Amino acid sequence: MSKINNVTLVGAGNVAAHLAMAVVNSGMNVVQVYSRSNRSASMLAGKLNVPFCTDPQQVSPGSDLYILALSDDAITEISSLLPITDELAVHTSGSLDLNILNGTSENTGVFYPLQTFSKNRDISLRNVPVCIETNSPENTEKLADFAAALSDKVYCFPSEKRKILHLAAVFACNFPNFLFSVSEDLLALKNIPFDILAPLIQETAAKAVAVSPAAAQTGPAIRNDIQTIGAHLDLLHNEPAIRDLYKIITEMIIRKHHQNGSL
Amino acid sequence: MSKINNVTLVGAGNVAAHLAMAVVNSGMNVVQVYSRSNRSASMLAGKLNVPFCTDPQQVSPGSDLYILALSDDAITEISSLLPITDELAVHTSGSLDLNILNGTSENTGVFYPLQTFSKNRDISLRNVPVCIETNSPENTEKLADFAAALSDKVYCFPSEKRKILHLAAVFACNFPNFLFSVSEDLLALKNIPFDILAPLIQETAAKAVAVSPAAAQTGPAIRNDIQTIGAHLDLLHNEPAIRDLYKIITEMIIRKHHQNGSL
Repeated sequence: MSKINNVTLVGAGNVAAHLAMAVVNSGMNVVQVYSRSNRSASMLAGKLNVPFCTDPQQVSPGSDLYILALSDDAITEISSLLPITDELAVHTSGSLDLNILNGTSENTGVFYPLQTFSKNRDISLRNVPVCIETNSPENTEKLADFAAALSDKVYCFPSEKRKILHLAAVFACNFPNFLFSVSEDLLALKNIPFDILAPLIQETAAKAVAVSPAAAQTGPAIRNDIQTIGAHLDLLHNEPAIRDLYKIITEMIIRKHHQNGSL
Repeated sequence: MSKINNVTLVGAGNVAAHLAMAVVNSGMNVVQVYSRSNRSASMLAGKLNVPFCTDPQQVSPGSDLYILALSDDAITEISSLLPITDELAVHTSGSLDLNILNGTSENTGVFYPLQTFSKNRDISLRNVPVCIETNSPENTEKLADFAAALSDKVYCFPSEKRKILHLAAVFACNFPNFLFSVSEDLLALKNIPFDILAPLIQETAAKAVAVSPAAAQTGPAIRNDIQTIGAHLDLLHNEPAIRDLYKIITEMIIRKHHQNGSL
C-alpha cells in the first residue's frame, strides 16, 4: 500500500488552512491549492509556497490525496469537475454522505476534524478528534495512517455516527456560543464588559468535561428556584425572544433533572 | 476602620466551603460554622478545626464578618435568627437585594462570587470576579479590603448591575452546560463517549473569551445552511423537545447575524 506524501487542497478556507499547516508540519507535502476565490487561493498557496488555481479543471491529477475542504453546497459541483479518476479524494464535512463523491473518483473517503476553526486562531490538530470513513478497507488503512500522522485521536466512524457527532457538536459549540453572545448583549445593557464572565465560562467547560454535564448542572433551574427564575423573567420583560428562550431551557432542565432524566 | 480578621460562616455548602478555604489561605480566621445540617456543619468545621452549630441562635456574636452563604429561600429565615446587632453581615446571592438583611444587622452587604462551585473541584478565588455592595461607604471600604485579600477582581456593583450579571451567568454557564448534556445524550444514542467533544468545548470557550462570542459564531445557522439544518432536524424526529430547541436557537442565530443584530 502506497503511503500518502503529496496532498492537494481543494478549498482554502479555515479548515483547509489548518489542515494544510498540519500536513506540512507532519513532513508531507501540499502540492497545489484550489479555491474559486483568487484571493483565498493565492494567500494559502503563498503561505505554503506552492502553485494554486481557481478553476477546478486545472487541478493537477496524480496526487496521493485530494482534500475537499469546501462548503457543503459547493462540494457536489466542484468535485464533479476535478480531472481525477482513481486518486483518493475525501471531503471534510460532518453532515454529508460518503457517496456524494461517487462521481469524483473510484477511491473516496471522509476526513472530518471535530473542531471549530477560525482565522487567527492556531489549533494543534494533534488534540483534535478526526473521524474517517472510506469506500474500501485499503483506503481506510491509507487514510487512517494519514490521519494518525496529524492527530492522536482518529476514529473510524460510519456516516450515521459522524452525522450524530456533527449534530452533537452544534449543541456543544455553536449553540453555547450563541448563549454566550446573549450574555454579552445583556451585560452591554449595563455597560459591563463581557470578559467578567471569562473565568465562569472556562470553568463551566472544564467541569462539564471533567465530571459530565449532567453531574455539573448548577443554577436556579436545577434547584427549581421559582423565586429567582421569576426575577430573571421579570428582568427580561423587554426582550421577549430571550425571555422565551430562558423559559424553554429552564423547563427542559427541570424536566430532565426532576422527572425521568435523559432526553 | 477595623480590619476583618475573624469570619463566621453561616452556611456550609459549596460556596461556603470555597470561601472558607480562601479566607484561611489569605491568613484570616474562620471562627465558627453554622449549617442546619449537622453533617454539612461538622464536615466543614472539622476541615477547618473550628466549632460549629446547627441552631442559628447559637451563632456567636462579635465576629468581624458574617458570610451568609445560604440558598436564596433560606436567607430571610436564618438571617432574622442570628444574635447579632451591628456586626457586618453579607449574603452571597447574585439575585437578592441588599436590603433583605435589613432586619439582621445595622451593617450589611453582598459578597457575590461569580463562579460555579462544586464539591471536589478546587477553584482559586484569586481569579474569580467578586461583586460587592454594602449599606455605607465605610462598610464598602471594609468589605472591598476583605474581597481584595481573596480575589484579584473586585467590583463594586449596585444590586441592579449584580442582578443582570447573575442573569447573564445563567446564559453563560447553566444553559450552555444543559446544551452539553443534550450533546451527551445524543452521543449516547450511538454509544459515542462524551469526551470526544472535550477539545471542541474547550476551544469554544477559549475562542468566545478571546474574540467575543458574536465574532466567534460558527455552524450551519450563521451560514444559513438550510440543507444541514434540515438534515439535523430530520435526525431529531424522535426527540420533539430537542428538535424545537434546535429550531428556536437556529432561528435566533439567523436573526441576530442576518438581520439587525444585537438582542
